[in-house]
Amino acid sequence: MLFRQLYDQETSTYTYLLADLDTKEALLIDPVLEQVERDLKLIKELGLTLRYCLETHIHADHITGTGELRKRVNCQGIVPEKAQADCADRYIKDGEELQLGSIQIKAISTPGHTDCDMSYLVNGTHLFTGDALFIRGCGRTDFQSGNSALLYDSITQKMFTLADETLVYPGHDYRGQTVSTIGEEKQFNPRLANQSKEDFVNLMANLNLPNPKKIMEAVPANQQCGKSLATA
Amino acid sequence: MLFRQLYDQETSTYTYLLADLDTKEALLIDPVLEQVERDLKLIKELGLTLRYCLETHIHADHITGTGELRKRVNCQGIVPEKAQADCADRYIKDGEELQLGSIQIKAISTPGHTDCDMSYLVNGTHLFTGDALFIRGCGRTDFQSGNSALLYDSITQKMFTLADETLVYPGHDYRGQTVSTIGEEKQFNPRLANQSKEDFVNLMANLNLPNPKKIMEAVPANQQCGKSLATA
Repeated sequence: MLFRQLYDQETSTYTYLLADLDTKEALLIDPVLEQVERDLKLIKELGLTLRYCLETHIHADHITGTGELRKRVNCQGIVPEKAQADCADRYIKDGEELQLGSIQIKAISTPGHTDCDMSYLVNGTHLFTGDALFIRGCGRTDFQSGNSALLYDSITQKMFTLADETLVYPGHDYRGQTVSTIGEEKQFNPRLANQSKEDFVNLMANLNLPNPKKIMEAVPANQQCGKSLATA
Repeated sequence: MLFRQLYDQETSTYTYLLADLDTKEALLIDPVLEQVERDLKLIKELGLTLRYCLETHIHADHITGTGELRKRVNCQGIVPEKAQADCADRYIKDGEELQLGSIQIKAISTPGHTDCDMSYLVNGTHLFTGDALFIRGCGRTDFQSGNSALLYDSITQKMFTLADETLVYPGHDYRGQTVSTIGEEKQFNPRLANQSKEDFVNLMANLNLPNPKKIMEAVPANQQCGKSLATA
């Protein structure tokens, strides 16, 4: 499997490129609108065909590149089944498997950051956790139908039951970390290790975070697969 | 081998953590002073012992974490043999091999960005290119004894003779790219693919880049392994 982690510095967002080296089919997880040229250039250089753009959820901090990528290279935009995005080409539901050449992508419903979050387990080894689980942290739960009790269950009952060596690739990182493992997060994630659900809910209720800068434009734009409001 | 790529957002610098999972010995390539706490925390959580801090060159854009790490955990600071850093515990020369448990690190002299640059080939598969070769770019050659003709030779005669599938891990990236391969850079690096030495020298002479913000403090501090001038 070809695997590339790509970063958008302005919003600290990770986009992931996966491709089957035999069939040359590729997918992007959580592409960012401002990085579409970079991503398309790389895909072209590597001789790949972009089949899918896969969203982990409706983002509040950046506008997805899916709409623009679909327009340019006719890929399919796939969003979690509960996401309010009528523009999607396809919805994916909990437990559903997507095949990309010999690469197997399994959707795991992990709500709590929003009510639609999906994580993706690739080839049983790479877990793309979106904004549910971060490296030594987790996504916030104070808007967009966030629910901290639900997030606690998603992480502890779904992600933390995977093998310890499973690689964790988050949707964001704000401290320059690129990868972790389930074993590490079980042991060292300060919000979750040795924390009861009650502890976690209390902690999440008292973070007092400012809203993301782009929330007013990002959520409605992402509900239209990245079409900006000005051109909608 | 345990391998972690770490990023300093302020200076777009990559630091690399390598460790032998049996002996638990670790080394950092190009640590950044402001990230020492993050790096030490990770090393501690993973149960590792930091043996070495390995510099690719005397940096002009950030202050190395090596001095502080040595003070805290008594690791050795290793710098290229031609670097003017009297504070080093050890110098490494072209072709020299360093062993870290079962991990083999081979130094390859790749001057041109500065007159001391060393790249490190790990286990024959991972090439840490410092500021000589970047992903689809290269280090500047307009100060600190930079020499673009020499950099051209270092990249084309040393790096580009390695196997195409060798992974390229640079000292910086400014576009959110995390890894490349020798094959890709030979084919797609706009400064080097199908460029004669003369073309390259002309191109490098006309970049007109501003000086790095930290150059006045970084170079003298790094010649003292990261001791800041204020406390020197």
